Amino acid sequence: MQQAAQPIDSVFRALADPTRRRVLERLSRGPRSASELARPFAMALPSFVEHLKVLEDSGLVRSRKQGRVRTYRLVARRLELAETWLASQRRLWERRLDRLDACLLEMKESEG
Amino acid sequence: MQQAAQPIDSVFRALADPTRRRVLERLSRGPRSASELARPFAMALPSFVEHLKVLEDSGLVRSRKQGRVRTYRLVARRLELAETWLASQRRLWERRLDRLDACLLEMKESEG
Repeated sequence: MQQAAQPIDSVFRALADPTRRRVLERLSRGPRSASELARPFAMALPSFVEHLKVLEDSGLVRSRKQGRVRTYRLVARRLELAETWLASQRRLWERRLDRLDACLLEMKESEG
Repeated sequence: MQQAAQPIDSVFRALADPTRRRVLERLSRGPRSASELARPFAMALPSFVEHLKVLEDSGLVRSRKQGRVRTYRLVARRLELAETWLASQRRLWERRLDRLDACLLEMKESEG
């Protein structure tokens, strides 16, 4: 079975960089212009713009240009793709631990 | 400020691929050998082994070789890095929505 690329792929890929995560953290507090977002980073502007592009391509942020200012905002719903997948993993894993517990208890009882 | 690479980077990078996520889903149900893991995928073995390597490098899985069989298991704690970051994002975002709500309510009351 071949696995086709999915929207969640680009979400996780966007999250795999500390600069991009830091941008998202700041956008969680409200919309910011590109230059406000760039300020804390000692990075050439083209590299920073590339990070913004990866974020926008993933659907985690949207931007809007008014005059000469481009403003970015978070699309929180997009983060849910990642959260939902991780939560389903946790359920699988915890179910397995529960079965393991039950198994050990049964072993103990049959030995006692 | 320059952002150094962090362990969570390689966790998110490992998650950014449907084959690797599917392998993790199977390992949530219990340890598997490399050949058992490879079976459902129509993929050349070297490509599949490369996916296993990315997973192992991220710390999300560990492997052990016994005789000629290499067995993989999930390291659930490593997934928590990603979960914790996403949960902190959600808190920031929800706090902002709460403030927005309070603000709208105040506006409404001062208008009424």
